[in-house]
Amino acid sequence: MDVSVRIYGDKRSGNCYKLQLLTSFLGKTIDWVNVDILKGESRSASFLEKSANGKIPILELDDGRVLSESNAIMHYLASGTHFIPTSPYAFSLLLQWQFFEQYSHEPYIAVARYINIYLGLPDSRRAEFEDKQAGGYQALAVMEKQLTQTPYLIGNTISLADISLFAYTHVAHEGGFDLSAYPGIRNWIGLIQSQPNFVPMYV
Amino acid sequence: MDVSVRIYGDKRSGNCYKLQLLTSFLGKTIDWVNVDILKGESRSASFLEKSANGKIPILELDDGRVLSESNAIMHYLASGTHFIPTSPYAFSLLLQWQFFEQYSHEPYIAVARYINIYLGLPDSRRAEFEDKQAGGYQALAVMEKQLTQTPYLIGNTISLADISLFAYTHVAHEGGFDLSAYPGIRNWIGLIQSQPNFVPMYV
Repeated sequence: MDVSVRIYGDKRSGNCYKLQLLTSFLGKTIDWVNVDILKGESRSASFLEKSANGKIPILELDDGRVLSESNAIMHYLASGTHFIPTSPYAFSLLLQWQFFEQYSHEPYIAVARYINIYLGLPDSRRAEFEDKQAGGYQALAVMEKQLTQTPYLIGNTISLADISLFAYTHVAHEGGFDLSAYPGIRNWIGLIQSQPNFVPMYV
Repeated sequence: MDVSVRIYGDKRSGNCYKLQLLTSFLGKTIDWVNVDILKGESRSASFLEKSANGKIPILELDDGRVLSESNAIMHYLASGTHFIPTSPYAFSLLLQWQFFEQYSHEPYIAVARYINIYLGLPDSRRAEFEDKQAGGYQALAVMEKQLTQTPYLIGNTISLADISLFAYTHVAHEGGFDLSAYPGIRNWIGLIQSQPNFVPMYV
């Protein structure tokens, strides 16, 4: 695999930040192709030809093959590294947290943040923003329960699960979520931020 | 791994059917523990102690360890089998389709079916039911594009991706979706149904 990978995305997106953080940990660089979702660029004909679901980020290989879904791209980029445990149970736990992230966390915390930060919390979306709060806090409670038992989500070492969930959790306040009652999560955020080669969002 | 696995779930749920179909293909049997979500049994204290996110299905191992998230459980059950390709790209494509299923397919097609079949399409949920149609058809279009190029979602052989997406796609009509304009999907449904040891839903 090359040390530079081509990603189509938007650096403000947490789903794209997952790849930025992972590649930094792995010592790879990203050749970014900016896609502005607010301008509809992820629904353009040329983008849809690459990835029919019209969502960022996507990874494009040198031979033109494409992968979509941030969490799936992470597995490709980190294949064979210590970010992916090899025992079937630990590996399935890693996937459990990534599916949790996409189904039970991102649709609440990331969408609330999107409405607030990208769209400026317009009156027309305020009810939806408020509807996202209960589900977001439920997701945080699930994480908190685990992170008071183990330092990382699947045990004593960092994995893709932590990177996937760090992306939107550490900016949950931008979606209106108060982490002060979640000491396990706050401790874990500090652990991720103290990793060698950590890079903050937006860089 | 034992040939019998303990699953907490509801056989009417497509997420649970994924496991029923996979275990049948693998020659394993399920020791079902029924959990009625309409009676709130997935939010009971005893269930939440096993799985804090309160969703079915969950897998319980003989030593008490638990896995949640249907797609993650599938990887545990099928570890080392031909349902999981080993090349990094093909494996990541499999994950891509499973994340697509949870983010872009299930929240539309399965939720519309839930409102219609489980809840009986009450007036209070009719607007939500109708709102699910556009997203569901978009997901079907993404699948159709692939399934007119390859017989299965990631190529010429069946994988976990097909089982994950078969579960709710083959009952999409119960969510109000008409598959008559999707010949690739209809052909693929027939391919899955013709596999050795196929079992229908609800059995």
